[in-house]
Amino acid sequence: MENIKEYVQNNKERFLNELIELLKLPSVSADSAYSHDVIATADMVLESLKAAGCDTVEMCETPGYPIVFAEKIVDPKLPTVLVYGHYDVQPADPIELWTSPPFEPVINPTDIHPKGAIFARGACDDKGQMYMHVKAFEYMIKNDCLPCNVKFMIEGEEEVGSKSLSWFVERNQEKLANDVILISDTGMISNTQPSITTGLRGLSYVEVEVTGPNRDLHSGLYGGTVANPINVLTKMIASLHDENNHITVPGFYDKVEELSAAERAEMAKAPFSLENYKKALNIDDVYGEKGYTTNERNSIRPTLDVNGIWGGYTGEGAKTVIASKAFAKISMRLVPNQDWEEITALFQKHFESIAPAAVTVKVKPHHGGQGYVTPIDSIGYQAANKAYTETFGVPAIPVRSGGSIPIVALFEKELKSKTILISG
Amino acid sequence: MENIKEYVQNNKERFLNELIELLKLPSVSADSAYSHDVIATADMVLESLKAAGCDTVEMCETPGYPIVFAEKIVDPKLPTVLVYGHYDVQPADPIELWTSPPFEPVINPTDIHPKGAIFARGACDDKGQMYMHVKAFEYMIKNDCLPCNVKFMIEGEEEVGSKSLSWFVERNQEKLANDVILISDTGMISNTQPSITTGLRGLSYVEVEVTGPNRDLHSGLYGGTVANPINVLTKMIASLHDENNHITVPGFYDKVEELSAAERAEMAKAPFSLENYKKALNIDDVYGEKGYTTNERNSIRPTLDVNGIWGGYTGEGAKTVIASKAFAKISMRLVPNQDWEEITALFQKHFESIAPAAVTVKVKPHHGGQGYVTPIDSIGYQAANKAYTETFGVPAIPVRSGGSIPIVALFEKELKSKTILISG
Repeated sequence: MENIKEYVQNNKERFLNELIELLKLPSVSADSAYSHDVIATADMVLESLKAAGCDTVEMCETPGYPIVFAEKIVDPKLPTVLVYGHYDVQPADPIELWTSPPFEPVINPTDIHPKGAIFARGACDDKGQMYMHVKAFEYMIKNDCLPCNVKFMIEGEEEVGSKSLSWFVERNQEKLANDVILISDTGMISNTQPSITTGLRGLSYVEVEVTGPNRDLHSGLYGGTVANPINVLTKMIASLHDENNHITVPGFYDKVEELSAAERAEMAKAPFSLENYKKALNIDDVYGEKGYTTNERNSIRPTLDVNGIWGGYTGEGAKTVIASKAFAKISMRLVPNQDWEEITALFQKHFESIAPAAVTVKVKPHHGGQGYVTPIDSIGYQAANKAYTETFGVPAIPVRSGGSIPIVALFEKELKSKTILISG
Repeated sequence: MENIKEYVQNNKERFLNELIELLKLPSVSADSAYSHDVIATADMVLESLKAAGCDTVEMCETPGYPIVFAEKIVDPKLPTVLVYGHYDVQPADPIELWTSPPFEPVINPTDIHPKGAIFARGACDDKGQMYMHVKAFEYMIKNDCLPCNVKFMIEGEEEVGSKSLSWFVERNQEKLANDVILISDTGMISNTQPSITTGLRGLSYVEVEVTGPNRDLHSGLYGGTVANPINVLTKMIASLHDENNHITVPGFYDKVEELSAAERAEMAKAPFSLENYKKALNIDDVYGEKGYTTNERNSIRPTLDVNGIWGGYTGEGAKTVIASKAFAKISMRLVPNQDWEEITALFQKHFESIAPAAVTVKVKPHHGGQGYVTPIDSIGYQAANKAYTETFGVPAIPVRSGGSIPIVALFEKELKSKTILISG
């Protein structure tokens, strides 16, 4: 049996070239202009799984983008691992902030940032990590050392709420039956200190629209007499946080788990430098909910952020217009026990209730997902920790992440199995 | 001498065709992508003045777009009228709200809105009115009945602050010497009740930029820990009005002229239906400064409106991003005695002062202009009123407009003459 390090060394150039081809495809699921590229990416993923040695590969049609399914059943009596990943990526804008084109991968030649790191949209979310699993599988097949059954389920709508995945999972419980699920789509404390994410925040994502007058107006003739939808929207959004940065939506905190002082003290032991954090972001100060540390604010506390806002004239120069409409995309990160559909409904009710009579307001729920906590005494967690310990020489630290992978809660509900969030 | 009504009737088709050709040119001064069309429009205006009978026509170069100057000197001893207009137009976006393409003029065939009205960007701001003066002049030349000297000065940067016009007027006082200035760039009470605008509001237009972290961040990992520039911007903008919709910038109202109860009672006599106003705009309620009526709010009171706002992800679908930057365009309408440069400085100081330490703020003044009041006992006003009375059968009503024509104050300062704002 070939040593895995030798195998990687002998095949490095091929691995890199294949991954780079995958990264070149702009599989932006949020923008329908890229639909052709999203499909092409699915095709490439399917071919890579076939080449790696799966018995069955299948392009599963859904109401949205297809799901790539593949499997290798060694022996039905052995345990089965389901590997989940996604082949879609976030939009690349604002394009001007990229130092190299997002879909022309560059291997970092310098010592600034990790040498050898690949810069491209999707390189670390999630094409790179997904590909790592494909290649680990390939190694085990080629060396006849695969100790369990493996299934792959790679979707194309993770960045837009995984709607088709829910549809697919609900209809394919048998096909997807497994003992443990592996997802590599979370971060690691550092390149020398591995970590396994045990907690995830939930998400509620909405879009709001404020309409004032039925058409754009001249601000000279109408300025001061009508509700300006942009001014009103800013007032409404501003009112969603109080002076302590608590969220003001009634009922929002009702089900939030309050951690004990002991638990918070344990969390506070994780290595963290506020100075380095501020320096890395070039900010003079952090900003958040009163009474909580930075690490608590982005893990055990829910938040509300505007992810996008637009209205009126945004081009070059000046236009003295009062826009008819103003818009914002708003997302709330939720913690375990908060139900995203309940929070979405609370937000909608509250946001509509605070609108002045001079405007009309629409709240359109985009998508959401539940928060999640993984037990660290499970076999899956212990196996992952053993693999990390062998590779890095130190055991992994369990951490809670501020991000959301709503499908983790879905998997538990539909497939009755736990997920291990193993970083790559 | 041919009767003017007959002249208009006999030349109507030619007049309309010429105006339509002028309206087809997208002379958007705010967007440099249209610079070629702005220049082409200046050329067409110059040709029309030559054809109408001016002795001298001149394309006057400036640091920006050229100014079309033309004159007919009948006798240096006679009074001279200077006609001002502008050949540039506002940007046409949001394009989807147009029922016909903005630069493909349509003559309204229905009875909804005035039959025969031309729908096109610039049709009533200001190409149509400017063209009316050219054709009135043509009539008087052709019929040898021009009773005074006439000068035309038509600029191409009115919609972006008339910077080059200021430059030009300051350098050409002799060329522009006149006894009265005519501008047709304001509204009329109705098609049967003429009005002459005697007051204009000033303007201060700024752009603000709020910067938080040095790059776009994932809202899952950073949500709750850093100042989100969009949330901060909404809080800052929201704080610019108090609960009575008074503007909170310190010193903002210091020089605002407070009208007497008698003056306000006189103003209140102007015909106005709040119900029709709301109906026309399809709003359930008006909105504005406490203690003032709608007609006062848009004429004798200063205002602050956001004209544009943008930041983060504004495309289709959802992106869970915390943007590095957020922007807004904000304009303040000012009343006589408020100095626009002083107000701009007050705004800038205040806006910077209310920024939390977690962000940095830039305020970039765009342009501005002073408010203005015209005396109704001047010869110019009386002559205009006489013309209106003969044409409409009723005298004009003097009104104050909420809009701004900053150059009116400039003309008074540089050319020492009064302006009559005569609607068309």
